[in-house]
Parts: sequence; structure tokens; C-alpha cells
Amino acid sequence: MAPASWLDIASDSPFSLANIPFGVALFPGSQTPVPAVAIGDLALNLAIFSSKGGFGALDEIHEHIHVFAQPTLNAFAALGRKLSGDVRRYLQDVFRADTPHPQCLRDNRQLREECLVPLQQVRTRLPFQIGDFSDFYGGMNHAVNAGALFRGQNGALLPNYLHLPMAYHGRSSSIFVSGTPVRRPWGQIVEDINAAEKKPLFVPCRTMDFELELGAFVCGGNRPFDTLSVQEAEDNIFGFVLLNDWSARDIQRWEYVPLGPFNGKNFATTISAWVVLADALEPYRKPGLKHPGPLLPYLQEARDDFTYDLRLEVQLVSGKTRQTTTICSTNASEGLVWSFPQMLAHHTVTGCAMKPGDLLGSGTISGSTPSSLGCLLEKTLNGKEPVLLSGGESRTWLEDGDEVILRASAGNESDGYVGFGEAAGLLLPAHAHQHKL
Amino acid sequence: MAPASWLDIASDSPFSLANIPFGVALFPGSQTPVPAVAIGDLALNLAIFSSKGGFGALDEIHEHIHVFAQPTLNAFAALGRKLSGDVRRYLQDVFRADTPHPQCLRDNRQLREECLVPLQQVRTRLPFQIGDFSDFYGGMNHAVNAGALFRGQNGALLPNYLHLPMAYHGRSSSIFVSGTPVRRPWGQIVEDINAAEKKPLFVPCRTMDFELELGAFVCGGNRPFDTLSVQEAEDNIFGFVLLNDWSARDIQRWEYVPLGPFNGKNFATTISAWVVLADALEPYRKPGLKHPGPLLPYLQEARDDFTYDLRLEVQLVSGKTRQTTTICSTNASEGLVWSFPQMLAHHTVTGCAMKPGDLLGSGTISGSTPSSLGCLLEKTLNGKEPVLLSGGESRTWLEDGDEVILRASAGNESDGYVGFGEAAGLLLPAHAHQHKL
Repeated sequence: MAPASWLDIASDSPFSLANIPFGVALFPGSQTPVPAVAIGDLALNLAIFSSKGGFGALDEIHEHIHVFAQPTLNAFAALGRKLSGDVRRYLQDVFRADTPHPQCLRDNRQLREECLVPLQQVRTRLPFQIGDFSDFYGGMNHAVNAGALFRGQNGALLPNYLHLPMAYHGRSSSIFVSGTPVRRPWGQIVEDINAAEKKPLFVPCRTMDFELELGAFVCGGNRPFDTLSVQEAEDNIFGFVLLNDWSARDIQRWEYVPLGPFNGKNFATTISAWVVLADALEPYRKPGLKHPGPLLPYLQEARDDFTYDLRLEVQLVSGKTRQTTTICSTNASEGLVWSFPQMLAHHTVTGCAMKPGDLLGSGTISGSTPSSLGCLLEKTLNGKEPVLLSGGESRTWLEDGDEVILRASAGNESDGYVGFGEAAGLLLPAHAHQHKL
Repeated sequence: MAPASWLDIASDSPFSLANIPFGVALFPGSQTPVPAVAIGDLALNLAIFSSKGGFGALDEIHEHIHVFAQPTLNAFAALGRKLSGDVRRYLQDVFRADTPHPQCLRDNRQLREECLVPLQQVRTRLPFQIGDFSDFYGGMNHAVNAGALFRGQNGALLPNYLHLPMAYHGRSSSIFVSGTPVRRPWGQIVEDINAAEKKPLFVPCRTMDFELELGAFVCGGNRPFDTLSVQEAEDNIFGFVLLNDWSARDIQRWEYVPLGPFNGKNFATTISAWVVLADALEPYRKPGLKHPGPLLPYLQEARDDFTYDLRLEVQLVSGKTRQTTTICSTNASEGLVWSFPQMLAHHTVTGCAMKPGDLLGSGTISGSTPSSLGCLLEKTLNGKEPVLLSGGESRTWLEDGDEVILRASAGNESDGYVGFGEAAGLLLPAHAHQHKL
């Protein structure tokens, strides 16, 4: 049973006392985004809270109070996982009905009015200045399914897949916070990829897809040419967001050999606004897909429960009918065969430097049933089997005006939900292209 | 004939009056790196020069003087190609023997002493805070040679190669300025990549290679979901550097299918310190490799002379003997089949946002003769044919203690050289690995 709060937090709120996710928001009347926490249906302005003595009893943060005056979480995360965890626990205490720090907020009406604002009145921004973004391929069901559709059954799971957590470098400049519309891209495609003579066309993408992923933000990092072990990597993960790796499948298919996905992915990646700290998910650890092994020692995970009992959902809001259909329900534990610490350790094993604010994507998380597949490529068997929507429509690929909403939640009503909010993006039609063709 | 300078500029200096490259340097006695210009064997401190009225006669820069107080060139480049070009021309005037602005520096002994410092006394830093780095594959000879070595003759040039300038997203956190030592990485390799059963090993890379590339820094950019045409892209290129895309071939070979190079490349990329403005290379335009076409309209280059008559050279300084061997001499015009504006236009064609300080790599520039190949993979036919070095040594791959130095230069003694200085990196031995194996 979760402790009660002096705030009125709905029992189905994703932002229960058990959560305390961090983000960056523009508060009413201000031009400068600042760090914030989501609690119930309120946002706590950490710039005001910290400057007015809110962290009074948390001695270890005092010399670092400037991190809450920044427009991103980079400086806060750079303090390390332990300190951000301490701040989260302190704020849980502050919001408890029987708070040991009543003067700090509960009984300080003026400060409450200054720093607690309805979530609906703030505008969330990207939580971090993202230095580098790397997108992994840690969902094994997806790798098998997508591999078969791209390369046939024989090439589905390539020989290296189970030996290393595979990834490509992504594009940090096109990561958008939830709510940002995404425009259907133009690009090069080849209609018959197997024809002897390839005749590329330049057209708006015809096979727009989403990908259901988790993202992990790095807090610490490693110096150039140093490495992080799997165990050290664990302490270098700040927290998690939902991540929609929008994918233009026809563009991707034509371009991806031999250097990997480029234009098919780099136009947009949507993340949820509130970063759920790794600590908040600790009670929900759960084994993921069993790795058949053997693994090289540098990749060995000491724990079986390397992922989380985290329910994941994708909703499609039809641009035509505005009706909402849940087109995917799965669980992080049903899709991932690699842990984030394994991914991070592998990323640094050559000495690649990681920095606070770097983002790792998990890869598409698909379960093993038709209703738990995390992208349309898999769900529709590359456009062959339409997905039925509420209201009688169907989709093979996304249509203009459709909105894709990812959601995630751990916990329950009794203990309080640890929810991610949403990663939502509306698909706008392609530009009428401005260049003479 | 180049105009004379009141400075004593050696006739073989890479930093002649015809050049005026920009960089960022730490000047003696200061803790803060500032924008600078290399001229002859001196560095001009632009922070001091600008704050003391050096730009007196250049009205258009006055409201932007703050850009020279930044620790990177991002803000300066963001002013746009025209204004950076105007600043370069103004500084050429300032340094001319018959300068129209004699009071501004030539006849101002105090300011000269404050802001002109021997290059040997400054420490260069990365010129930009690099947001995103994308590495293209625009050298066709390299693509043919490397493709044949990785995939056999039939898979050498893939069907998409001549239809689009191919690229992968690189890692911005591991880009280092010339002079930074690079450490041989550990990683996963498979000794017999063609064996039915793959048995990966975790070892220090055995096949360390360099890649001779040019890098282009973006000045302007495009908003998300907008695009740049080839013609617009031209105005969004600030200038060029040398770029060594260090490559761990054995790691790359095992990991690169299907998502492209990752750990095999992301541990280190070395760039030269002084950015040669695109304007400085204008007089040296030259056709590159002839593209057999046809190209989709969005990729068509209006000009044949899409690259430069830019001499490129790679020197290897043996770690054993310290003797220097020139192991590659080529020319940008002999290797590139795609122009940087084509690369940039393609990069944005899906709406991917570019920002000032983003970096594009050209891909390895190899000529068509054995002495003009831009990496050891090609030169040694994947380790089969050793390269002879001065002093009787040979190399198939780089050895610990070897230093790789890239150089580039356009122009001549009469008109003044437009040189890049060097992109140098010493290869340190792999760490004795710290994790228990």
C-alpha cells in the first residue's frame, strides 16, 4: 500500500507518489523552461521550489542548486544516479501526508501557490539537450519478424544478433517531445526492390510506420577510451521515456544496405516528456526474454530480472473518424532480450564516450502474439494484412491525420502507478514539394 | 599573384593571405578558448581583436560581436555563409601590406601584441560544438574497393550507390581535434567470418585502419520537416576540415549487417583544427568523378566542378623508427562522385533538421592508383599486401605507437596556399582490459 499524499492524487494517476518523474516545462508567465516534477495532475516548478528553500533538509543538494535553474536536466542528471534518487525520495517525503518536512511545502501556502501548477497549464519541452542518440535492436521478436520481412526467413535473425546488442547511431536533432506533429517525409523509394533494374522514385513515403520503444537517458558516462561494465552501466542510467522511432519503411528498405538506416529514420523520433527514474521502476523488475547464450563475459548480466514489468500500449487515433483503437498491448518483459546496461556496456566497449543526456533506444518491443506487435511492419506483414480500427476503418500503414500515442505504466492502484504519460505525434501530410521536379 | 602582407608569411605557409581559416584556441595565460584565425605562423585572437574595435570598418558585424566571445564557432557560423565570408575578406584586407585599415592592426602595436600570438603557443580545440555527425560514402573508388573486400566483387557497388549519397549517422562525442591520441579499441571480432558457426572473440582490434576524408561544417540549416535543395545547401556549408574516420575493420565486419557500422567506428574521429571556409576554396573548384546518371531531379548538381583541386596526403610516422612515409597522395577531385551540397540536400530531403555545427564526412577519398588509396583496407587488400615504409618496415594495419597525419592543400606558392594544417593522431596501445574476463 502506497503512503497517502496531502495532495489530491487520483488513484489512476500515472504520476503517483511512487513515481516522481522529472521533466522540463515552461510555466505560465515565464519565457524560460525549467526542471519540473509531475505529481498527480500538477507540475512542481523545481527552479522556484529550490530557490525558495524547498530542499532545506536535503543537505547534499545545496551546493548543486544551480542545476534547477537550467533549461534542461543535463546538469541535474550529471550529479549521478544516487543523488537524483535522493532528490526523488526527498520529494516523495515532501508530498507524503505525514511529511517530515511540513513547512517546506505542505504548510507553506505561498510557496505551494508559486510552484505547483496544473499540468495542463505547463508546456513540456525536451527534457535533455541530447548529445548523441543511439537506437538499439534489443527486441528479439521484432528482430525476427522484421528481418524475415526485409530479408526472407533465412535472413531473419543474423548470426551476430545474439552475440551483441546491435545498434545504429540515430539523429539527435530530430528528436521531438510528445505532442509535436510529424510530417510525412519525401524520399527515394524503389517499388520493386527485387527487380533486376532498380528505378527509384522521389515521392512522399507510402509506408509510414511507428515503432514502440523505450528510451534510456544516460546520467554519468565514461571518459573517451574508458569503458563501462554492465554493472557500472546500471549506475549510469538516469531514467526512461517512451520512444516512437517513426519509420519510412519504403525509404529505409532502399537505402539501408550496407550502412544501415538513414533517411528512413532521421526525420523524427518522438519521446514522452516525463523521465521516469530508474529507481522508480526498481520494484517492478522482471526477467525479459531468455537469452540462449553463451555470451562473452563483458556482456554478461548478473541478474535475470534485467527488464521491467512495464505494460506498453499503442493507440491509433484515426484522422478520419477521430476514433481511438488500441493496436498494440505488450510488456517490456515480453520483448527485450538485451538489458539497457548490456546495451550501454557494449556501446562503450570500444571506448566510445557517453555523456549525461545521451539517449539510447531499446529497439522495437514486440510480444509474441498478433496483438502485441510494436509496429505496423510486423502487424500487417509488410502491408499485406490490414489492421482493423474502431469505426470500421482499417490500416496497412499510417494515413495523414492519424495520431500515434504510446503509453506505459507499471504498478497498480494500490501501490500507485508508475506511468510514463504518453508519447504522442500527429502525422501531417507531406509537403507539396517546393523544389521543381 | 597574391597580395603581399605586412606580416612575414612564409611562401610555403598553409595559412597564406588567400586562406584565413577559423578555429578555436586557448591563448597563453587564458583559461577560456576563443575563436581565432590562423595567418602565417600566427594565431589572431578574435575575442580580443573584436572587443578592441578591430572590426571597426565592418559595420555589419557590430551587432554580432558577441559571437567572438564564445568558446566555439557555432554562433559565428550561424550568422550565415555570406557574413562569415565578409569577415574573412575583411581580415584579408586587414593583413594586406596596403591595408585600407592600417590603424586597426598594422599600425596599432599594442593591439598587435595583444591579439597576435605564435601558433605554437596556442592550443587548438574542437572548432564547433558538434550536434550531429553524419559520415557519407561519397568516394566511389573507395566504395568499389571496400565493397569488393567486404562482400566480394559481385557485391562491390550496391544498386543504390549511384542513386543516392549514402551515409550513416556517426558519433559526435568521440570527435577529437588533431593531436589527440587515440586508443586501440577492444571489441568483438570473428576470425573466420565465413565459417558456418561464428565464434566471436573479445580482443583488442587487430586490423586498425584510418580513413582519409574531408569534413564539412554546416552553418545555417533547415527547420524540422523543411528541406534544402542542392543550390540552397551550397549556402549552408561553412567550411571544411580534414577528417580521419578511424576504423576497427574486424569489429566493423562482424557488426555492420544490417544496421551499419557502430563500434567499429564510434571510438574516435580526428579532425583538423582550422576550418577552411568554403569561400577560400572557390578559386580551386574542379570536376570530380563523373556520375554516370541519371539522377533524380532533387539531387542534380548544376555544376560539373562540384569538388576542389585539393591535394590530399596521408603520412604514417612509424612508432618503431619514427620515420615518416607518405602512404597516400591523392586529390579530392579524383575520389568524390557526390558533392557536399548533394549530400546535404539528400540528408534533409526527408525533413531532417540541420543545425550550425553539424558535421558531414565525405567518405574515404581514394584515387584510382595504388599510391592514391585512402585507407589501409584498400592499400593492403584487406591485410594481404603489406605497405612498405621508409626504414625497411612494412604495415598491413596500424601498429601501436604509429601516428597518422592527414594533410590537404590547394593553391600554390605564387597565389598563396590554402592549406588545412594537419589531422594527426597517435595510436596508443589497447588498455589492459579492466573487466574480469
